[in-house]
Amino acid sequence: MPKRIAAFGEVMMRLQVPGYETLQQGDTLKYSFSGTGVNVVSALTRYGHTGWLITRLPDNPLGTAATVYLRKLGIDTARIVRGGKYIGIYFLENGFGARPSRVTYTNRLESSFNTAPEGTYDFAEVAAGIDGVHFCGITLAMNDGVRAQMKSLAEAVKRRGGQVIFDCNYRPSLWGEGGYAKAKPHYEEMLRLADIVMMNEKDAMLTLGMSTTKREREEQLAELIPGVAAEYGISLIAGTHRSIHGDNSHSLRGFIYKDGRLVFSERLTFSVYDRIGAGDAFASGIIHGELEGFAPEQTVRFAAAAGMLAHTVPGDTPMATEAEILRAMKQASPGDVER
Amino acid sequence: MPKRIAAFGEVMMRLQVPGYETLQQGDTLKYSFSGTGVNVVSALTRYGHTGWLITRLPDNPLGTAATVYLRKLGIDTARIVRGGKYIGIYFLENGFGARPSRVTYTNRLESSFNTAPEGTYDFAEVAAGIDGVHFCGITLAMNDGVRAQMKSLAEAVKRRGGQVIFDCNYRPSLWGEGGYAKAKPHYEEMLRLADIVMMNEKDAMLTLGMSTTKREREEQLAELIPGVAAEYGISLIAGTHRSIHGDNSHSLRGFIYKDGRLVFSERLTFSVYDRIGAGDAFASGIIHGELEGFAPEQTVRFAAAAGMLAHTVPGDTPMATEAEILRAMKQASPGDVER
Amino acid sequence: MPKRIAAFGEVMMRLQVPGYETLQQGDTLKYSFSGTGVNVVSALTRYGHTGWLITRLPDNPLGTAATVYLRKLGIDTARIVRGGKYIGIYFLENGFGARPSRVTYTNRLESSFNTAPEGTYDFAEVAAGIDGVHFCGITLAMNDGVRAQMKSLAEAVKRRGGQVIFDCNYRPSLWGEGGYAKAKPHYEEMLRLADIVMMNEKDAMLTLGMSTTKREREEQLAELIPGVAAEYGISLIAGTHRSIHGDNSHSLRGFIYKDGRLVFSERLTFSVYDRIGAGDAFASGIIHGELEGFAPEQTVRFAAAAGMLAHTVPGDTPMATEAEILRAMKQASPGDVER
Amino acid sequence: MPKRIAAFGEVMMRLQVPGYETLQQGDTLKYSFSGTGVNVVSALTRYGHTGWLITRLPDNPLGTAATVYLRKLGIDTARIVRGGKYIGIYFLENGFGARPSRVTYTNRLESSFNTAPEGTYDFAEVAAGIDGVHFCGITLAMNDGVRAQMKSLAEAVKRRGGQVIFDCNYRPSLWGEGGYAKAKPHYEEMLRLADIVMMNEKDAMLTLGMSTTKREREEQLAELIPGVAAEYGISLIAGTHRSIHGDNSHSLRGFIYKDGRLVFSERLTFSVYDRIGAGDAFASGIIHGELEGFAPEQTVRFAAAAGMLAHTVPGDTPMATEAEILRAMKQASPGDVER
Amino acid sequence: MPKRIAAFGEVMMRLQVPGYETLQQGDTLKYSFSGTGVNVVSALTRYGHTGWLITRLPDNPLGTAATVYLRKLGIDTARIVRGGKYIGIYFLENGFGARPSRVTYTNRLESSFNTAPEGTYDFAEVAAGIDGVHFCGITLAMNDGVRAQMKSLAEAVKRRGGQVIFDCNYRPSLWGEGGYAKAKPHYEEMLRLADIVMMNEKDAMLTLGMSTTKREREEQLAELIPGVAAEYGISLIAGTHRSIHGDNSHSLRGFIYKDGRLVFSERLTFSVYDRIGAGDAFASGIIHGELEGFAPEQTVRFAAAAGMLAHTVPGDTPMATEAEILRAMKQASPGDVER
Amino acid sequence: MPKRIAAFGEVMMRLQVPGYETLQQGDTLKYSFSGTGVNVVSALTRYGHTGWLITRLPDNPLGTAATVYLRKLGIDTARIVRGGKYIGIYFLENGFGARPSRVTYTNRLESSFNTAPEGTYDFAEVAAGIDGVHFCGITLAMNDGVRAQMKSLAEAVKRRGGQVIFDCNYRPSLWGEGGYAKAKPHYEEMLRLADIVMMNEKDAMLTLGMSTTKREREEQLAELIPGVAAEYGISLIAGTHRSIHGDNSHSLRGFIYKDGRLVFSERLTFSVYDRIGAGDAFASGIIHGELEGFAPEQTVRFAAAAGMLAHTVPGDTPMATEAEILRAMKQASPGDVER
Repeated sequence: MPKRIAAFGEVMMRLQVPGYETLQQGDTLKYSFSGTGVNVVSALTRYGHTGWLITRLPDNPLGTAATVYLRKLGIDTARIVRGGKYIGIYFLENGFGARPSRVTYTNRLESSFNTAPEGTYDFAEVAAGIDGVHFCGITLAMNDGVRAQMKSLAEAVKRRGGQVIFDCNYRPSLWGEGGYAKAKPHYEEMLRLADIVMMNEKDAMLTLGMSTTKREREEQLAELIPGVAAEYGISLIAGTHRSIHGDNSHSLRGFIYKDGRLVFSERLTFSVYDRIGAGDAFASGIIHGELEGFAPEQTVRFAAAAGMLAHTVPGDTPMATEAEILRAMKQASPGDVER
Repeated sequence: MPKRIAAFGEVMMRLQVPGYETLQQGDTLKYSFSGTGVNVVSALTRYGHTGWLITRLPDNPLGTAATVYLRKLGIDTARIVRGGKYIGIYFLENGFGARPSRVTYTNRLESSFNTAPEGTYDFAEVAAGIDGVHFCGITLAMNDGVRAQMKSLAEAVKRRGGQVIFDCNYRPSLWGEGGYAKAKPHYEEMLRLADIVMMNEKDAMLTLGMSTTKREREEQLAELIPGVAAEYGISLIAGTHRSIHGDNSHSLRGFIYKDGRLVFSERLTFSVYDRIGAGDAFASGIIHGELEGFAPEQTVRFAAAAGMLAHTVPGDTPMATEAEILRAMKQASPGDVER
Repeated sequence: MPKRIAAFGEVMMRLQVPGYETLQQGDTLKYSFSGTGVNVVSALTRYGHTGWLITRLPDNPLGTAATVYLRKLGIDTARIVRGGKYIGIYFLENGFGARPSRVTYTNRLESSFNTAPEGTYDFAEVAAGIDGVHFCGITLAMNDGVRAQMKSLAEAVKRRGGQVIFDCNYRPSLWGEGGYAKAKPHYEEMLRLADIVMMNEKDAMLTLGMSTTKREREEQLAELIPGVAAEYGISLIAGTHRSIHGDNSHSLRGFIYKDGRLVFSERLTFSVYDRIGAGDAFASGIIHGELEGFAPEQTVRFAAAAGMLAHTVPGDTPMATEAEILRAMKQASPGDVER
Repeated sequence: MPKRIAAFGEVMMRLQVPGYETLQQGDTLKYSFSGTGVNVVSALTRYGHTGWLITRLPDNPLGTAATVYLRKLGIDTARIVRGGKYIGIYFLENGFGARPSRVTYTNRLESSFNTAPEGTYDFAEVAAGIDGVHFCGITLAMNDGVRAQMKSLAEAVKRRGGQVIFDCNYRPSLWGEGGYAKAKPHYEEMLRLADIVMMNEKDAMLTLGMSTTKREREEQLAELIPGVAAEYGISLIAGTHRSIHGDNSHSLRGFIYKDGRLVFSERLTFSVYDRIGAGDAFASGIIHGELEGFAPEQTVRFAAAAGMLAHTVPGDTPMATEAEILRAMKQASPGDVER
Repeated sequence: MPKRIAAFGEVMMRLQVPGYETLQQGDTLKYSFSGTGVNVVSALTRYGHTGWLITRLPDNPLGTAATVYLRKLGIDTARIVRGGKYIGIYFLENGFGARPSRVTYTNRLESSFNTAPEGTYDFAEVAAGIDGVHFCGITLAMNDGVRAQMKSLAEAVKRRGGQVIFDCNYRPSLWGEGGYAKAKPHYEEMLRLADIVMMNEKDAMLTLGMSTTKREREEQLAELIPGVAAEYGISLIAGTHRSIHGDNSHSLRGFIYKDGRLVFSERLTFSVYDRIGAGDAFASGIIHGELEGFAPEQTVRFAAAAGMLAHTVPGDTPMATEAEILRAMKQASPGDVER
Repeated sequence: MPKRIAAFGEVMMRLQVPGYETLQQGDTLKYSFSGTGVNVVSALTRYGHTGWLITRLPDNPLGTAATVYLRKLGIDTARIVRGGKYIGIYFLENGFGARPSRVTYTNRLESSFNTAPEGTYDFAEVAAGIDGVHFCGITLAMNDGVRAQMKSLAEAVKRRGGQVIFDCNYRPSLWGEGGYAKAKPHYEEMLRLADIVMMNEKDAMLTLGMSTTKREREEQLAELIPGVAAEYGISLIAGTHRSIHGDNSHSLRGFIYKDGRLVFSERLTFSVYDRIGAGDAFASGIIHGELEGFAPEQTVRFAAAAGMLAHTVPGDTPMATEAEILRAMKQASPGDVER
């Protein structure tokens, strides 16, 4: 049964040099609008749910272009507040093979979202209309204002019986020096509020300061994740292990921890066209499986396939429908042209 | 010695989303004009033959653009009839890795070609000027009118001593429900008229209803194809086995059955840029080898290399010359930049 | 006060050769989705109203791309029915100066919209949710099925007290030979149902068969339009007179007839970038003025400025906001760069 | 009745910076292939004649691309000789308003055409198959080899009763210092061989050294052109007067002198998109009128309209059909969108 | 004799929607780097001088791309300091005819330039190496830090006998409410330091608070400008009057006040391709004329032609050479294609 | 410590068909300017050195565009001489997988560089300002004039104590028939002047006529290269072994011979985006290592990584900084997106 899911987060303008030129070589940029919340709720609308975005955008042509783009992505924009002056922007230079992709940010701290004053959003009304809400560790890194808003909304949703979803998504460059220590209390608050959490063993070790004597990632995971779930009262934890190869291909393996069981997907290896946002596709798959009541084995396989397919389309935001993901799960090798 | 070969078939407008965006993401289409007959006779002109197209195009800017494009492909357009109102169109969204390419058709049944009334073409005159004619199973799927035209032209060419070439090319979506049964009598008529046929063991089983106890494709082929040749009086049958890998590469192996011998090419594995129309390149290689009197071993290797190279250029229509194909047959690995 | 307006009509895919090449010169097309109804309700959403589209689109990637595009235009797509197989397509080659633009259609009669069976739409539900509905003479030219649907919906809206808007928009190529005679009874039916009508003296003479001894267009208008309003019980008739100059500029003068008064806008002369759909911008201005209760003088000036601005943006669909139109009405000459 | 016309001349590769950037600003070039002879015979094929090109192109990918492009333009390429090493190239930077367009040449003297040895072409065979042949003063400026070839072919055509057409087309930069004196004897030879000549009063004064006391161009023309026709035995002389305005528009007036009468077209003023090659469109109109036996008044109006329309399409080569030119001649102002 | 001129000012990234789409319609941006100082010193290098830019750019890929672009513009980048985090960005949507162009800024106050701490630049060293320095009123609007730097550098240059050039360039949106009053003392300080000033009668009235009883702009100028020059000890004041027409053309008339004489250029009317930065081209012409010792009549005509030509090329930065400007001054109408 | 390095060589215009179309399929070219010397000194400027180019470019818009582009690449253009008429041009059609890339040249022998008369350059002044100079075997193949200039400059640099770098770079198509014999004396002269040489065992065998009984390339190298160094008095010889795979990947292994030791880098295998110019990146790495006094093991690994990264960016000219190359040397597999 379709659900109503909101995400609270910033909309970023993505400015990408087309092809494989660098910024100093090119003269053209492709633009689109994305963000972790944008990607997750857009994917959920493709699976049949209703997706809202709770954010603030400037009342200028950039804010309008962002809103128009979000509608194109299937997102309900009726709850977006217009105000403030700026939109966060990032520049993307595509890597190729041995040369990694590169992201350069403009000053997102001055964005309409990150400067929204208290009282900008009517969280009670939002919470009344939804079945779940999604937050991300990137927002948590911004400033006290948005952190307070995150927690207010999470609490409002929890009070109404909705689900709180939190993607740890720790970005070292956003927390600066002494970052993990600074981040820890904020992460702990969000984890205590959350029902569904995206993280892996590295988050447990680095952000939460847990330790393990194991060396293999899978063993570390098995040792640490049950403790996190218990400590913070989280019903489902999921995440991925990724490895990157020199021929523009990656490998991805998803896991899910629920009801005391740790379940893995198969390890998928695939050619990569656009890596950005693929983690959000995995998260959307986990959320969808959970909303629909899939078995964990099915959920993690669905999420891994959703993640894989998101690497094959341009842009941050996943494009696959539920049918396309189910078909990709069934095939041993990619199909021929569909006519 | 160069020959004069005609193809009877529909010209389609190909509208391709450039790069790897889907139709809902993009805003631009690249257009070209193609079709099985177009691809085959264009390839033959690159090998030194003269290629005619027998078709009908609307007398509007789209029909003119198609004619101009066919001339660019080296095709003699003097026998193309202008009339009717529409041209068949298909949209192509490129797949990437795990995501397959996708083709969406507009209503080709209303096209100038598929609505050409009896008497549109002067088949006697056409037959008088050529050494062979090419038909395709896609045309056979259209309607009674074009089927009658196919058979009239095939008979006219046969009467004049020319060769009849038929590519089975069964497309399930065109025949609809109960498709194989509906198709069988029409295929049988064409096979009885044909000297050279493109097909493989699946056509024998599905369309002609033959059966085998073998499980390997090569064994099925060895069991079934001689029977087809004998049953319908076909002098040469050729085709391919293809497999598709997750890293944008395919493998292709060609075979030829002639004078009681089944001959295979080596299995070629190669990166794929544009898969559509590559089967027509293989067919053109078979026809060229046969017109030039190559040994079957040489013909099937030539055809497989022609097919391989056709995957490396944009567009449906093969671009390789005979010299380029011969060079590709000789090299163990691709050459460095040619200066 | 914002109103809820629906349009009933076909969505067309527009395939435009970029720049000034013809179809035989180019190899790229820019695509978008439009239609008279699309243009009118999209413009109305920019003025603050809610705009629905009542139509049928195929359940394939083209139908999805169209739906996504309509959302981008601000249109509520929740009432769009998915089914049928095709979408109508037109090709546009831009003219330049002395060379007129050229439009070539594919077979729109087979489109999902034009083949929608009776009962496709729940007109009672639609009528219950809106304040007005827009129809266009292009739809009227299609076939008996859509004509019946037009009239059913118009009647349903009228019954609920909503306004019926009809744009005569007679296209000779759609009605074929003996066109005006064939069209007349259908136009008369729609005129009797309509409250607001877009037409001018040519429609009165050619479609409705009225005659006048006057030679100047303004005089013909003054003589004929009051009679049309009286005869068919129409409360407001509006339209434009256009002239085309050799330097890529046009002149436009709007008129409105209401409560027995014929009011003209000034004659605007302006450079033209994209002429298609500009008539729909004028119509949207008339409807907005009427919904908002502007004086006729203000309404016709607003509509003329909306029409003028629509010639300055790419695409069929108007992009100007109410504020932008009001500013254009105030300025004697265009403003400098806005910073 | 359709005629067979050949042109003898060089094919140039045109490399144009798209839009209005200069070479130092841009990074992209649009390429096509043209030349005076190319433009004239391509235009004639659009009017229903058969057009051959007699030239020499290198046997490399550039020569192949040129041949393919000429076929796209409707030109019969069967008599093109492949050999030599290079193709002439010119770069075009579009001007805008007060900034003139700029052309930069590469070394065309080393081109396959300009280095073709004696005996390259079988002029007797060419002459046997055609009704007329076109030459241009640009070729005359190249070197003794091509000048000898021009004269041989002109004489061969004259002997077979075909018409010799010569466009004076004097380019100062090609003849260098003391250019007119160097050019005069060569021009005189060609004028004596020619039946139809494109020139105006400036050619008479500068190249042929004639003088006049008149000051107005029309009067100079009336005084000088009859003398040229008499002196060199030319049956038809035609040309244009052009003026250039600051708003991207030009004015053009054509004239024709035949049977002792000097006839002018009206002065046409129109917006200009691509000025290059428009003179060839005028010439093609004169030739067509003459081949078809139009009255001089009709011929010059047809040619002027052909010239005007050629300014409205991208590329050097005219694109208008006879029907489109006839329509442009009839209309007082440009038509609205053609649907 | 070539001079060495520096400009002190911010480098902005310009992100322009190509063609005439708005930000909500397009998906691509063309980028370049500019700024008043950039434009002026780049133009001066085209006239043969050496141009330095004194600014601060971030040490990231955007800063590198900007530096690379400035080198392409001919600017000496050796004195550019790398540091800080951001670059100012503006978005440009091209207007057309009746629809004005629109500029949207990101937060330039956080840019590397506007946050450069005291001591960032070695002004003594800069002043020692140059003959003149250029400042702009836009920089003056930023903050106290850059204002202090402007004045320090101006004083350093004055002490060394160099010329101080100041372009008033008042932008209302940058000074906010009560803007003129806030700006006045800063403008007065700069005017007292300046030798050459760009301004017109509006600056005198609005920023400096002067008044006049005249109504015509030329008369206001004649009354006010001598007073400004006297009051602030300015040796040369220059500026323009612009009017904007509905057909994408503008008119421009330049003036210069020097040695007690007010001299005007003719009023130039021309088609406009890219209006942004054209004022800087005028300024560069004034500076060049003054550096070279032209008579004021020649200087103002040169500057007006430089301004006119700058409207005909894409981008903010003028591209014309001295030779091109001199030619444009001589011609009554634009020339034909230059070959 | 940064050094000043000059290269003496031709600037070529590169005209590349974008994507994977051939010249006969496309209509657009991407242009840039490069050359062995351009690539090497541009790379050296990215490592912190100063790079000059000693060449001659035409005084026309192409020469200006080339100069502007070289500045963008970081090259000091102050010593470039303007004169002559043409610039060498090459066309590049990208290969894909089994289809090799293809380069077609225009007549570079007539270029400004290759026709520069004696005395064009002031070699004494050049030699006085630099620490080293780079030459390439391509220049050696041109004509006696440039060969004499090469040797004059090499001798002048040697006299001043600078280093002479020579890249053998033998291109069979440039030397024509009997090429190796014709080339040998010229190569020997340059080798005797050179301190650092790029070559491998094939050059030793084919150009210098040395022989070996070994079959493996590494063994041939070990046998022949010390002899070359001894014979011609070369202090450092370096080069690469490349192999090409069918999936758009190459393998590369570098070697360096110095002080009697032959050192290899590891064999790197990587996906290839643009292969042209990658050899120059390797050479620039060798030169940088040598200028900076790296150990040979570090130098050859740095050079191999520089070569590898040059395959991952568009264009002939390397783009990687020293920091990027050092990072690529450290990583076992490519990194994830850098944020």
